[in-house]
Order: sequence, then structure tokens, then C-alpha cells
Amino acid sequence: MENGKEQSGKEQNGKGQPDTPNKFQRKALQVPVAQEKALAYVQPGETEIISLKESDGRILAADVIAPHPYPAFRRSGMDGYAVRSEDTLACEEGETVWLKVVDHIPCGYVSSVPITEGTTSRIMTGAQVPDGADAVVMLEATESRSENGETYIGLKRAIEPGKNVTPRGFELQEGELILAKGREIGPGEISVLATFGVHEVEVYRRPVVGIFSTGTELLDIDEPLQPGKIRNSNTYMLAAQIREAGGTPVVMEAIPDDIELARSKVASALQEYDIVVTTGGVSVGDYDIMGELVASGGVDMLFNKVTMRPGSVTTAAVKDGKLLFALSGNPGACFVGFLLFVRPAIRKKLGMTQLHLAEWTAELGADYSKVNNFTRFVRGRLGVREGRLVATPAQLDESSVMVTIKDSECLIVIPPELKGASKGHPVTVLVLPGAWS
Amino acid sequence: MENGKEQSGKEQNGKGQPDTPNKFQRKALQVPVAQEKALAYVQPGETEIISLKESDGRILAADVIAPHPYPAFRRSGMDGYAVRSEDTLACEEGETVWLKVVDHIPCGYVSSVPITEGTTSRIMTGAQVPDGADAVVMLEATESRSENGETYIGLKRAIEPGKNVTPRGFELQEGELILAKGREIGPGEISVLATFGVHEVEVYRRPVVGIFSTGTELLDIDEPLQPGKIRNSNTYMLAAQIREAGGTPVVMEAIPDDIELARSKVASALQEYDIVVTTGGVSVGDYDIMGELVASGGVDMLFNKVTMRPGSVTTAAVKDGKLLFALSGNPGACFVGFLLFVRPAIRKKLGMTQLHLAEWTAELGADYSKVNNFTRFVRGRLGVREGRLVATPAQLDESSVMVTIKDSECLIVIPPELKGASKGHPVTVLVLPGAWS
Repeated sequence: MENGKEQSGKEQNGKGQPDTPNKFQRKALQVPVAQEKALAYVQPGETEIISLKESDGRILAADVIAPHPYPAFRRSGMDGYAVRSEDTLACEEGETVWLKVVDHIPCGYVSSVPITEGTTSRIMTGAQVPDGADAVVMLEATESRSENGETYIGLKRAIEPGKNVTPRGFELQEGELILAKGREIGPGEISVLATFGVHEVEVYRRPVVGIFSTGTELLDIDEPLQPGKIRNSNTYMLAAQIREAGGTPVVMEAIPDDIELARSKVASALQEYDIVVTTGGVSVGDYDIMGELVASGGVDMLFNKVTMRPGSVTTAAVKDGKLLFALSGNPGACFVGFLLFVRPAIRKKLGMTQLHLAEWTAELGADYSKVNNFTRFVRGRLGVREGRLVATPAQLDESSVMVTIKDSECLIVIPPELKGASKGHPVTVLVLPGAWS
Repeated sequence: MENGKEQSGKEQNGKGQPDTPNKFQRKALQVPVAQEKALAYVQPGETEIISLKESDGRILAADVIAPHPYPAFRRSGMDGYAVRSEDTLACEEGETVWLKVVDHIPCGYVSSVPITEGTTSRIMTGAQVPDGADAVVMLEATESRSENGETYIGLKRAIEPGKNVTPRGFELQEGELILAKGREIGPGEISVLATFGVHEVEVYRRPVVGIFSTGTELLDIDEPLQPGKIRNSNTYMLAAQIREAGGTPVVMEAIPDDIELARSKVASALQEYDIVVTTGGVSVGDYDIMGELVASGGVDMLFNKVTMRPGSVTTAAVKDGKLLFALSGNPGACFVGFLLFVRPAIRKKLGMTQLHLAEWTAELGADYSKVNNFTRFVRGRLGVREGRLVATPAQLDESSVMVTIKDSECLIVIPPELKGASKGHPVTVLVLPGAWS
């Protein structure tokens, strides 16, 4: 049972000869190199047309171009009176200019009465400014009188041309790009698309991601606890992470401790799903089924060691252009491995352009003393103190620790050169999805 | 058509007498006062029991207590050998200590062979440490030899008690709080709940929020453009915002320009749904149906003016303990009004404790010159420069502007005292949901 473990390369089945590649001798890739290597195999997937009303959270698969200017007409920015600014010039000599009211223009109504010298129309905010007028005087700046059944308004100050009139195409001109493909649709995108009458959108189909766990020590989540065993929590954590990333998770039965059966299960999952993710079986003391499967053919290994903690044994392979990610079974390592490798792959499949977690510089909120020869991704809280971004490591951040995953808002990147870092030291942080929501 | 507008209180139907309350004379509340006034009417809603597997994004309605310690057993943190640390003390005199291997312990297996003086068991990472042992020596620190069919391992260094053994209850003790009610369930929460076998969770039912638009100038989103008219974009923007906030939106037919019909539609919506939101009809030049409805009884008005821009006419009322929010029809004002008033109400109904947007201090990324006698909530981008949070106002942030909503990551709070603010000035920012995701 103990062959091929990360820390056990020297003794293989007690026979001195490894039957799977010695993990001590694995070539470890830097995280960005490993990410690129896997992402090179991902192309945006198929597209589908859906109703705008059900599009939030989806990703545009085509640029959307403005079919008309917006505003589509000269729009009044005030409740008031539409005027010819030149009619108001006489106010500059101290005169009150009186204009005859020729129409009332509510929103949605187009006046058929053009404004000519000496006339004006009452107009509402948002209504179309009538022909002839080039400015809107706000209601409060006017007085009114009636004479022979006609209403006149008096102005005491001149108004400049264009005042309180939003020009046609002020926000967007016809033919301008509204939204580029790859854009995630949220409330603001729905607002602009609806405004332009884009009631159906072409989006990328959600990638379907198959999840396997490995390890005979795993109990299902509704089983009573048994001595020495743990429940299978990673599978459902991964399902939630996949949904957040925009994919559709499919939870499969656990991978058995039989290499040929495992191979056929993984192969058929790779045929059926867009991406396959496994958790466990790469290093943590269980039977190293995934390491053996990847090493022994049937899939092309991309990498099986990454210079990171947790999750140095994170493994990726490709078969017929589809990716298999074998993540650590340690909860913390599985969580981080998903965010660094699987999430970007799902997002690329979705046609997104920003694949990785948002990356910022913050200061360390507390000393971090752990040292390592690999880059460490430390779970932590993200706050702001006096305008400065502050990232504070979780108290328990071992890869085997699960309770602090839920309290994490960022991953703090501690490069090996740092040899630990003191409070206040600048560090790179990767912001977790929904950190401050 | 022009009665009761925000900027038009002086002239009402040309008769000089307002038939709805004069909005100039409305009592304007500060934002936090208005928020509290509305939230006072919200109580957490009904609960339901759902499968943990479908719980992400839901809110826990009951505290969850650890039914057992975690880890539930003393867990090996290494691949190696479980030993009695006192057996290794002789190493301190330079001796190699030899221990007889009495068992192999993979994950999920409980050894029946206790470790006694002079013995050890091979153990995997994650497996239960056998009785008698109090430390695990990592594999790489051992040598092995065989003798008479028995395996012995040699140690050259003493090991301290507890080394590489995670104590029972290290992460959580039995009876400790795992998660408090009001907590949103995400991947980390699912991980910890699954670990403890909590396969069903009690969550708050999603509040159902009815949405009405008002205004005869509105075209539906699949109608061709008509002169002077605009499409009804706010309704679908609100639906997406409601989903993000955790509610279930129901889009209703537009409210007609008939006060009695409007009243009965709103009344029946308030009976059927948990919260009702309308957009338009409070000030922007369309028929002031909502202002009139709220002012003329049938519902109890909570406020109809807030000292904020955009959205100063944001109105709230209550009927039989249920809230009606009448938001501005201006896209920007509607967006902001939802975030400041409706979202916290939905979150309180959901039993959440953090009701409002995350609030931080940032520095202004560009000059902001607009001045106002009300607090302004300016849409903007949120970034980090040399470790400092930087908020940059959108170029077009008028309440009528819709195109910049989609590009907003925060609302920058500009108090009226500032009289505009220059680049670098410290400002409060409210982080929008999913800003950096």
C-alpha cells in the first residue's frame, strides 16, 4: 500500500525497486509554468443562445455591438422647458424673456410641434427634446403667467446651448462595442443589453466537470463515523467550487483500488465530460492510484509535481485534448489546487479572458514563520487598514487542516526566498471568489 | 402628467395646488437612518431542510455543533513509523535504536497491535496512530534491515513526544461551534459540514421579491425601438441583483397609470411576496404613480426622500409587516438604491448578520469635482497600487447613465462636506458583490 508516496520514494513495496516513478525524482514545475502547460490544451467550448433574462453568471460568446445610439434621441435631463438658447440671450441685458408654451412632452412621447422663435414646450426628465430646441431650462428657474388662454413662461437668465440636453449617442454610438465576448454577465451587463433590446445572448455552454474521489478510507457524508476513517468532504467542496467557477459538476463514484478499473473509469469520464478532477490518490498515504494511472500510460502526463505548498503533488494529464487534474486528498491542498489549476481551465473553456484569481500586493497582517523550499499559498483574511490592503494568515494553515478553508478570503503567496516573513512585509495575495461579498 | 416631480414642486397640474405631497417639502433622511428604519420591519423568514450537496449559496438557519472531535482520532501527519518517543532517547548518546516492525497501517485502518517497548508500526499520512505510540518518525529518517523474516528499522535521532501526530480534536472539539446560523454556505463550509457528516442543513427559504416597473414610455426588451421611448432594462437588472442577494425574483407586469389599479396590484403583490420593489414613478418625469400611491394611504410610508445621489427620491413603505421599496427609474439610481436598501433587507430576511456591502477606506484614484448637498455614491473601479486600495470614479456617473454600471466594482462615498475631492484623498468605498471575482 505504501508505494510511490511523496515522502517515501526510497522504499517501494519493501523490494527496493519502485513500480511507479519515484516522486523524489519528479521534475517540479513552477506554478505559472504548470498553469500554462495545462491551459494550452483548453479551447473555449460550444455556444448556445439563451434568453437575456436567464443569462446572469453566463459568459458572452460573441461581441455585442450597439444596434442604435444610446440615448437614441436627444434626452431632457431636467423637468422644465425646452427652449432655443438664442431666445434667452436678451436676459443678459437684464430683461425677462417671455416664451409661449406650445406643447407638454411627457416621457415616451414625441412632440410634433417644433420650437420656433418665442416658443417653448414643457418637458419631463427623460423625454425627447423637440426639434428646434437646443436647451432645457429647469422648472425652478421659470415663472409663468396666463394670457388669453395661453401659458407663457418667463426666464431671467440666459442658458447656454446644449444645457440639460443629453446628446444622442452620449453613452454609446451605433456600431460601438457594448460588450466583448468573454465577458461575464451580471446586473450591469443585463441592464445595458436590455437597453439595446438584446433579449437573447450567445453564451458558452457550461463545461461539465466529472469529480472522482479515491481512497478506501472515505465514508460518504451520510454514513456514521467509523474508527480510523474520515468522510468524503472534498468531493462536495469541489462541486461547489466548480459551480462558482461556472461549470456543472458531476459527482462520480469513488475510484477503486484497481488500476485497470480506474483507468477505464477515468477514460470513459474523459470521453463524457469536458474536464475530469480527482482528489486523493497522489501522495498522502493512501494507495497512489492516480499517480500510477497517470504514469503508466493511457493519458499524457503534463506534470506531476509543482513547486508549491500545499499540493506539491498536483498532477495534470491530457487525453484526446481533455484535461485530467489529480488533486491532493488533503482538504487544504485540494482547495488550493482547484483554484490554481482547475478554475482557470473552466474559465478558459468558458471563453473568459481573466482566468486567474485577482492578484494584488498587500502587507502581511501577522508574522509568518513557516519556511519551505517551495512557494507557499497560505489561506488568510483580507482586510484594509488605513487604506492599505492587509492579509492575515490563518492560524491553522497546514494542508491537512480543513476548518480554516471556510474563513479564507485570500491566498497569501510566500515565496521560498522569504524564509518566513514578518508583519508588515509586502506580499502578493490572490483574492478568493466572493471574498468581500 | 407632471405632478409631484422632485424638481417641480412649485407647479402642480398648472393649478398651483399640489394633489400629492410636495417633494420639496419631504423630510430627507440620512442613508443609515433610512436603512435602519426599513430594516426594523424585517425578520428572518421561514426555514427548510435541504441536502448539503445543494446548499451552496444558502444561509444556515441554525448553529451547527461538532458531533465529534476532528480529527476524530490521533492522526499521523507523515508517512513513516509510529513509535514510543521514550524508545528513541538512547539516540541522544549516539546509538542507533532498532525497533521491530509489528504492523502496517494504511489510511482508514485501525491497528489492533499496540506499540510496546522496542516495537513500531509502518504508518501512512492520515492514518490512525496506534495505541502506545506517541510520535511518528518520517520514513526518510529511518533505515531498515530484515532478520529472521522480521523487519527492523533503525533511528539515529531521538524524537520528541507528539511529533508528527495531530491530536484528537486538534481542529475542533466535540460540542464546539462549527458554523453559526446566518452563515452563507460556500465550498469551505461544505467541506467542514461534510467532514462532520452534516448531510442535511436547515437554511432560510429564499425570500421571493416581486418587481414592478412603471412608466408608459417603457418598451419590453424584445420590442423594436420607437421614437422617444426606452426599453425596460431596470426590471431585469433588478432580477439579477435579487438573485445575487439570495432572493428569488418574480417579474410582474408594469404598474398602470391608474392609481386604484396600481394600489390593488401592489397590495396583492405584498400579500403574495416577501418584498416588493418598483422602479420608476417616483420622480423622473414619468407619472408619479408610486409617490402618489405611497402618500395616499394603504401602505405606511417609512421615507420618501434620502440625502443621497443618485436616488434621493428612494421611497419605502410597509404594509402588514412587508416592505415596499419604490426605487428611481434612472438606471444608476435604481442600481444604487437596490444595493443600499433592498439587498440588506433580503439579507436580513435570509438571517444573515452582515447586511451591508463591505466598507473600506481607499484613496481616490482621480479628481472628483462634482459637488452636491447630498452624499454621493459614485460608481467606480477598485484596484490596489503599492499596497493601497485605490477607487477611481467612472467617467460617466450621472444617475441617468447606464453604461458604466457594468464596469463598477465599488461605490465611492463622497460626502457633501467634501465639495468634490482630489486624487489621493481618503474616501469610503462600498465594495460591490463579486467585485474581484
